[in-house]
Amino acid sequence: MADIVEILKEKLNLPEERLLELIAIGKERTISRNNRFIAAGTIPRKFGFVVSGLFRYVYSDENGQEFTKGIISEFSFISSYSAMIMQSISYFSIEALEDSEILEINYSDWQKLKISDPFWCNFLLSLVEKGYMIKEKRERELLLLDAETRYRNFQKNYPGMENRIKQQIIASYLGIQPESLSRIRKKNIS
Amino acid sequence: MADIVEILKEKLNLPEERLLELIAIGKERTISRNNRFIAAGTIPRKFGFVVSGLFRYVYSDENGQEFTKGIISEFSFISSYSAMIMQSISYFSIEALEDSEILEINYSDWQKLKISDPFWCNFLLSLVEKGYMIKEKRERELLLLDAETRYRNFQKNYPGMENRIKQQIIASYLGIQPESLSRIRKKNIS
Repeated sequence: MADIVEILKEKLNLPEERLLELIAIGKERTISRNNRFIAAGTIPRKFGFVVSGLFRYVYSDENGQEFTKGIISEFSFISSYSAMIMQSISYFSIEALEDSEILEINYSDWQKLKISDPFWCNFLLSLVEKGYMIKEKRERELLLLDAETRYRNFQKNYPGMENRIKQQIIASYLGIQPESLSRIRKKNIS
Repeated sequence: MADIVEILKEKLNLPEERLLELIAIGKERTISRNNRFIAAGTIPRKFGFVVSGLFRYVYSDENGQEFTKGIISEFSFISSYSAMIMQSISYFSIEALEDSEILEINYSDWQKLKISDPFWCNFLLSLVEKGYMIKEKRERELLLLDAETRYRNFQKNYPGMENRIKQQIIASYLGIQPESLSRIRKKNIS
């Protein structure tokens, strides 16, 4: 596994002692491609930090149609956050799109750490705020931008990602049919 | 104006001394129907708590078409949160749908209060978490439910609200055309 201490230090910008507190409650885990870290319909009791690999948040409707609500790459947290803090069932799954390595953190261990020092409240607040901003941006793009502009934003926001993810999943992230994505891509290449 | 101290005490569940700290940095304000608390294109330097009345968060696209991304009634906070914490321009407006009374709080005063005691970090965290959960629920409904089910959920989640809001705005909140809303309503009445 990649040197998790170095990665966390660099990416989370945590003081050394805080970093060690976080790592102390974490477990290094690998999750193989197509496996789920959290399954829809279950109560999430853990979250994770992606050390390497790629995940998506995915809803499935009753007809088995899939909606990719988020794509999460290296150095971000993955969680079904609302369901975890409410201890209710998750409506979406968290699925590995590549063989991935994570630092897995048990939610009740995290809660204990969180109340141990105000530092962690501020840390968590900044994470939830970041999540909130990502959601707001995505909502705005889905409401206001046409499919072609959303595709170009995707390329810009996730450089190199197009080659890592199946077209079908990119289409479901953009909220369009795979055929529409094909058309847009051809147009943009030519 | 309604007795703001009593309302805040009941609705925010704050200890007396904390309540007074919050009120000390707040200003009571009235905002008339159709006026904006925050205008799209400006940097938000304030947020508010709705004491009475009704607001919406609204995006307008370049053709002047409107998307109501949220409806906020009494006893909730209103803010263009992402833009406020980033001190960047707001992409949406906050508009009063009725003559409303709010407690207005200046963002820099709030920041000072927030760092004065860890209590406020926990308070803010619970507010941002609540906002995050509302967004996640709305996203799920827009993705997975048909228009008729969204309409019924709206009636359930916002009892009595149908008579307070123009049909056109309800339609833009449900993500459908006003004609579709008319059809759904007739079907549900008959």
